[in-house]
Amino acid sequence: MSAMSLRAPVTPSTVTATPVTAETAAGLLEEVRTRSPLVQNITNAVVTNFTANALLALGAAPAMCDVPGEAGIFARVADGLLVNLGTPDAEQRVAALEAVAAAREAGTPWVLDPVAVGALPVRTALARELLGHGPTVVRGNASEVIALAGAGTGGRGVDSTDDPEDALAAATGLARELGCVVAVSGPTDVVTDGRRVVRISNGHPWLTRVTGGGCALGAVMAAFAGATPADDKGAALAAAVAATAAYTVAAEQAAATATGPGSFAVAFLDRLALVTPDDVRLSARIATKEAA
Amino acid sequence: MSAMSLRAPVTPSTVTATPVTAETAAGLLEEVRTRSPLVQNITNAVVTNFTANALLALGAAPAMCDVPGEAGIFARVADGLLVNLGTPDAEQRVAALEAVAAAREAGTPWVLDPVAVGALPVRTALARELLGHGPTVVRGNASEVIALAGAGTGGRGVDSTDDPEDALAAATGLARELGCVVAVSGPTDVVTDGRRVVRISNGHPWLTRVTGGGCALGAVMAAFAGATPADDKGAALAAAVAATAAYTVAAEQAAATATGPGSFAVAFLDRLALVTPDDVRLSARIATKEAA
Amino acid sequence: MSAMSLRAPVTPSTVTATPVTAETAAGLLEEVRTRSPLVQNITNAVVTNFTANALLALGAAPAMCDVPGEAGIFARVADGLLVNLGTPDAEQRVAALEAVAAAREAGTPWVLDPVAVGALPVRTALARELLGHGPTVVRGNASEVIALAGAGTGGRGVDSTDDPEDALAAATGLARELGCVVAVSGPTDVVTDGRRVVRISNGHPWLTRVTGGGCALGAVMAAFAGATPADDKGAALAAAVAATAAYTVAAEQAAATATGPGSFAVAFLDRLALVTPDDVRLSARIATKEAA
Repeated sequence: MSAMSLRAPVTPSTVTATPVTAETAAGLLEEVRTRSPLVQNITNAVVTNFTANALLALGAAPAMCDVPGEAGIFARVADGLLVNLGTPDAEQRVAALEAVAAAREAGTPWVLDPVAVGALPVRTALARELLGHGPTVVRGNASEVIALAGAGTGGRGVDSTDDPEDALAAATGLARELGCVVAVSGPTDVVTDGRRVVRISNGHPWLTRVTGGGCALGAVMAAFAGATPADDKGAALAAAVAATAAYTVAAEQAAATATGPGSFAVAFLDRLALVTPDDVRLSARIATKEAA
Repeated sequence: MSAMSLRAPVTPSTVTATPVTAETAAGLLEEVRTRSPLVQNITNAVVTNFTANALLALGAAPAMCDVPGEAGIFARVADGLLVNLGTPDAEQRVAALEAVAAAREAGTPWVLDPVAVGALPVRTALARELLGHGPTVVRGNASEVIALAGAGTGGRGVDSTDDPEDALAAATGLARELGCVVAVSGPTDVVTDGRRVVRISNGHPWLTRVTGGGCALGAVMAAFAGATPADDKGAALAAAVAATAAYTVAAEQAAATATGPGSFAVAFLDRLALVTPDDVRLSARIATKEAA
Repeated sequence: MSAMSLRAPVTPSTVTATPVTAETAAGLLEEVRTRSPLVQNITNAVVTNFTANALLALGAAPAMCDVPGEAGIFARVADGLLVNLGTPDAEQRVAALEAVAAAREAGTPWVLDPVAVGALPVRTALARELLGHGPTVVRGNASEVIALAGAGTGGRGVDSTDDPEDALAAATGLARELGCVVAVSGPTDVVTDGRRVVRISNGHPWLTRVTGGGCALGAVMAAFAGATPADDKGAALAAAVAATAAYTVAAEQAAATATGPGSFAVAFLDRLALVTPDDVRLSARIATKEAA
């Protein structure tokens, strides 16, 4: 994929694409703190606690509402919704579909995190069905995004790669096909709306040694999307980028005081509460280019 | 509600109502440490881990037993039972009803935590059914207690208030109607048996920034109720008050050493293990009045 | 049971049984770090997060895959599998049977943790059925191992003892009957393949004050078994012993810096990441004897 970006037009892409900046991210963190968006989480059994604590620390209001007959009702009043497919039991599958249908009707922004999609049939079928309900953001690692893009066009299964740059074409294609934002996690995070590609170069490897390090970011994206004025055309891209920036800047701050993954997770929750818009303004490394 | 207490009889209410004191709370903490009550938890997916760790830290023995066909058997041998409606999936709903029926028969004290009751129909219907089985303690925030009281008399939905004083009439009415104790969490916690109103003025705002900060208190109330001699008429009120006092005094101690919600949660578990009856004796701010 | 070991032959048992040593344990920890085994966890709702974090800290790759229709597929590609019966809901019971059948066919080593088996009928029936699929390791406390051995021969229910030495005959009998390794947790951990009895005398009481302290060890045993060359005849015994040694040496290191169960759990995750093969070589207290 890096070869592909070398084939991009000579005209500097940063000229025509409106950039998402550290200033944008700082402003949206301020919005999250002010509005305290209510975020509904339909997520996996491993990370519910960490996800809720990450949202609470950040200043958002988490709720796990994943029972059929309630999930749709909640999705109409929530400011944002996360659907994470990590442990999709039968009731949660029904609740997820109920919630996204309601979110779509009510205009609630929602994030799909297609954990381990591709190789495992139950979640892959569910992911395909959910995609039809118009997610605001799809967030995954490179393998998941490649698998998901493949699923949309016939199925190529899971790729073993971990580098977001290798998933760039899949991400851009998926974003264009679905009219959504696709975010790919990695050492450098890549977020695209199919037109612009934004890279955020913050974070710390310890985030990958704490379970839910990626999953909770999906919930934080739902919080940022839920705190963003809905009439802003580029809102979803800015929200996903700002969420990633605030989250990974907090991770850098936490890593500076931790001695291992246990103390890192604790310090990270502290820093999600303490990280300021000015910290994001000063530390976020965000670069916007036009998509190839 | 503060206006209503001004309308209370001029005769000092503290004269006729036996007060629950810091001394009572300290003694019951000693009982919990000595007896290590076995507490069955049928609780939500987000807080199971934190709840079990809080009980273990305190010196109780937690068990999550929420499978139909086992939940009732366990409720007969447990010293106390918590039923928390945070994520009530279909099997857990069956298990909850099985457990409370067995608890009632066996005389096992049990606590109902009606999370988000009122607006969400599945848990609201379940809460109504559970109330018929005679909970020992109902514990919630102001909105939940108001909704629950309304549900018993025709349904008024969820109130958005967070102040326990605004839920005082609902709490007192519910306590009298059900013959149970009702505990309302807030900056000052309010616990009533319908005759006496006890206020506990300890705690720290960070308890609201840790998921399960309220839910685990329900489990701790079940531990205290399970460690209290059953022939004591005022046992349930004293247990709920003592649990709140020990829990919130530990929270104050934890907050003194923490830098954010992550390190607070860790320090809080430490302090639940380390808080002494003397700490409770010296630091618990408990005031008993007669109910209006 | 200590009386029974006094009845053992006078010939020193350590002569004929190949010992498992601290050197073995250190070497296997090295293997886990190098191979990063993929460990599938079908475990209880209380400990999923702690279990995944323990595996990640150690250097393994955890996955919670417990949905019917996926659990078997995953068990064929995983390096190791844990089945823990702490909260066995209906779907998880189906998934567990599906996973162990696939693990058996594919040669994936798997660990059974029969939490609270004996008194509770749903998990006891499931445990009995799972035993027929040839677990690599059965891991439990003394009461559980005694109950499980009884279940195999007619059912004696749960014993209240906590001392692994009291479960030695049950453990040895079960290991011989099933051709597996049985590990009994306690102040001194006992691991046997029915021929050799290995005692590991490390650890700290705070491990019993953190929920999942025992359950996560089952997952770590699956990681060690998954990182062990399969053609080694004594592989399962060595893996279970090495997992216990690395785990309990890390616990000792963590206890040295903690002030209570909350900070202990955090430091323990740090130490699982930081404990070195040399630490295990120097600190593991492992003794091998011939079984009576």
